Amino acid sequence: MLKISILTIGDEICIGQIVNTNAAWIASKCTLLGADTIIHSTIGDDKESVKTELSRIIPQSDIILVTGGLGPTHDDMTKDILTEFFDDKLVLEERQLSKLKEFFAQRGRELSERNAAQAMLPSKCKALDNNIGTAPGMMFEFEGKALVSMPGVPQEMIYLMDNHVLPYIKNKIISENHATAKYMIINTSGIPEAYLADLIGNTDEFLNECTLAFLPGYGGVKLRIGAFGSKQETENEIERISKIIHDRAGKYIISYGEKTISETATEILLQNNLTISVAESCTAGKLGASLTDKPGSSQYFIGGVMTYSNESKIRLLNVSADTLDTYGAVSEQTAKEMALSVKRLLDTDISLSITGIAGPGGGTTEKPVGTVFIGLADKNGVFADKVNTGADRLMNRERAVTAALVFLINHLKKSY
Amino acid sequence: MLKISILTIGDEICIGQIVNTNAAWIASKCTLLGADTIIHSTIGDDKESVKTELSRIIPQSDIILVTGGLGPTHDDMTKDILTEFFDDKLVLEERQLSKLKEFFAQRGRELSERNAAQAMLPSKCKALDNNIGTAPGMMFEFEGKALVSMPGVPQEMIYLMDNHVLPYIKNKIISENHATAKYMIINTSGIPEAYLADLIGNTDEFLNECTLAFLPGYGGVKLRIGAFGSKQETENEIERISKIIHDRAGKYIISYGEKTISETATEILLQNNLTISVAESCTAGKLGASLTDKPGSSQYFIGGVMTYSNESKIRLLNVSADTLDTYGAVSEQTAKEMALSVKRLLDTDISLSITGIAGPGGGTTEKPVGTVFIGLADKNGVFADKVNTGADRLMNRERAVTAALVFLINHLKKSY
Repeated sequence: MLKISILTIGDEICIGQIVNTNAAWIASKCTLLGADTIIHSTIGDDKESVKTELSRIIPQSDIILVTGGLGPTHDDMTKDILTEFFDDKLVLEERQLSKLKEFFAQRGRELSERNAAQAMLPSKCKALDNNIGTAPGMMFEFEGKALVSMPGVPQEMIYLMDNHVLPYIKNKIISENHATAKYMIINTSGIPEAYLADLIGNTDEFLNECTLAFLPGYGGVKLRIGAFGSKQETENEIERISKIIHDRAGKYIISYGEKTISETATEILLQNNLTISVAESCTAGKLGASLTDKPGSSQYFIGGVMTYSNESKIRLLNVSADTLDTYGAVSEQTAKEMALSVKRLLDTDISLSITGIAGPGGGTTEKPVGTVFIGLADKNGVFADKVNTGADRLMNRERAVTAALVFLINHLKKSY
Repeated sequence: MLKISILTIGDEICIGQIVNTNAAWIASKCTLLGADTIIHSTIGDDKESVKTELSRIIPQSDIILVTGGLGPTHDDMTKDILTEFFDDKLVLEERQLSKLKEFFAQRGRELSERNAAQAMLPSKCKALDNNIGTAPGMMFEFEGKALVSMPGVPQEMIYLMDNHVLPYIKNKIISENHATAKYMIINTSGIPEAYLADLIGNTDEFLNECTLAFLPGYGGVKLRIGAFGSKQETENEIERISKIIHDRAGKYIISYGEKTISETATEILLQNNLTISVAESCTAGKLGASLTDKPGSSQYFIGGVMTYSNESKIRLLNVSADTLDTYGAVSEQTAKEMALSVKRLLDTDISLSITGIAGPGGGTTEKPVGTVFIGLADKNGVFADKVNTGADRLMNRERAVTAALVFLINHLKKSY
């Protein structure tokens, strides 16, 4: 298999100022092509450490993908590091200079000296056009390997990957006839990891050369089958193993493929041609945002309300002051009224509501922080569920959204 | 300085199925204590690769923080790897077994054999109580160093860090009298990276042993000053350099400290005792969710509407069908009507609206994908801004929220 390593350069990643989403994005795209990402490594802005790390990972890898440190300021030193590492010198790339001039002209700005210097590139590299930023990518080919340096700004990295690097990797896998990896994800819900493992039984008996991973998350446990070899072999093996898992744990499977709970929910809405609206209290828009992450969401998502304060529940949704007084804003009754009301207001087939105590304040013995009620209204009536999402504010808002979507999925599967 | 390395074990990270948020969280907390995180490394579920990586990073580090691979299923092998690596054997930890029994009893479930096996731990490690999951942490101390193994599930890792590891690191820094690092973040807006660098001038003249990093993002460029030494030295240096930057680029500074644009905005709302409501079209809740990420948001955030469809703009906000017909849903006029209407509906001091073309469909030559109008209404009237957030759907929704918050901040700074 084609071995990929990802090297991220930047103090901001090392010290935890920024989450390394680039590495995951790059790896996921390489995985889709069947390549094997073996290393993710992050090193701060220090010349010697980066050179040492390059010396370590290059011998193990066929392709080395480097991000970060290509900007126009003094703390960007990847170009200098690579020039030294490959015993090279910087030369002016006329084509990149004209591109930079054009880039700034289009934006009505003058090309500064700092930005002009971005057209000075190591002589041994091939410059990769970056049409959405000022730093070109650089590809060094040597000993059958390739090292590619890209900016750390996510959209620029994505541009370079999509337009240069991924086609290069795809072509290399085919032309050099590499074996590939294929994965299948099975999403389960409603069963803890250890119980699911017991249901599936002794994996040694059926995995052969394949792998099976258990990935617990808020919405349930994801299973990931991995198969390795030719296209035909991997497809056959994945089919064989997914059938075994379906036979043993089928009733807990909610969907197949790498998709979020929200994608699973919206697929079912689309299949059944249903529209949805939402009413959110503690999550204040997270559920709506999640249901509209994917293109085409206007086909099922009509709109909703964020009723954060009690006053807003009354003003926007006509929740009765009586209900709020008697049962509280965080109650089954309020969740149901919210769902019924937003469904009526926006005339949708289904509505989903969330009201809960996100914390850290507001908890009581009876309703501790993390108590969340979910409401769902449709042609069959109005339903509610209660979950406890734990004490962490950021996490329990995410989990409340996940719990609402799981409730929706199970309801849709049962009723439509 | 105390050197920290973070080793993440798991195919799911390597192949890009999951973003490694744990590494950033761990690093940011160690940075706050003044420690120096020098390596983030991710390795798949492969015994030999993990052992090789441990042999590489241990000599460079004082503390090695390992996450992942502690679950109850066959693909979890960190415990076995560490047992082999430290030439140790597994023994039953009675205390952890009782904790497990209690954990399952509380949840009304039976302790399965798989979960019971989680109380078998290497004899040389100290077990760290994990009160929210089934896998205890393990701390190995040797040659003045410490290696800690934690589960990969984020909330369990956080529990172990907060309750065991961070206090341990803090104590080690003090008792061994390590130099520390201190950072300060200065958030700027409205000036590109290279121009800001020109304004600040030659950094060699004032940085001495400190560092200055330029971190461009959607909302603007963040500057990060780094100082190293004793507490007093680092505080003095940070003060000296931040003053220089303020003198040279003060008018572009929107806030100090590691905070999001949303936190900067909400701070100003709180200072001025202002309430806010939102009306969101293409972002469908992302702005509301962002304004309520932090505790205490009910002091300023009242509520809002997600008016995704034209119909919902009419039903919930009374946007006139004329405006929608004449100017379109994505227009300055619609953005203004949305802002005025939600402000009136929820009786807030300020309101903020977003309407845009998230894509990939729906763009025209005049209004390409990424065109976003922002509306703002307050006691002084109603205002609007137009931005282009680019062609990528996920990114332009994030950027639309950022642009709206920057618009809000600049308006608040000017008017209150």
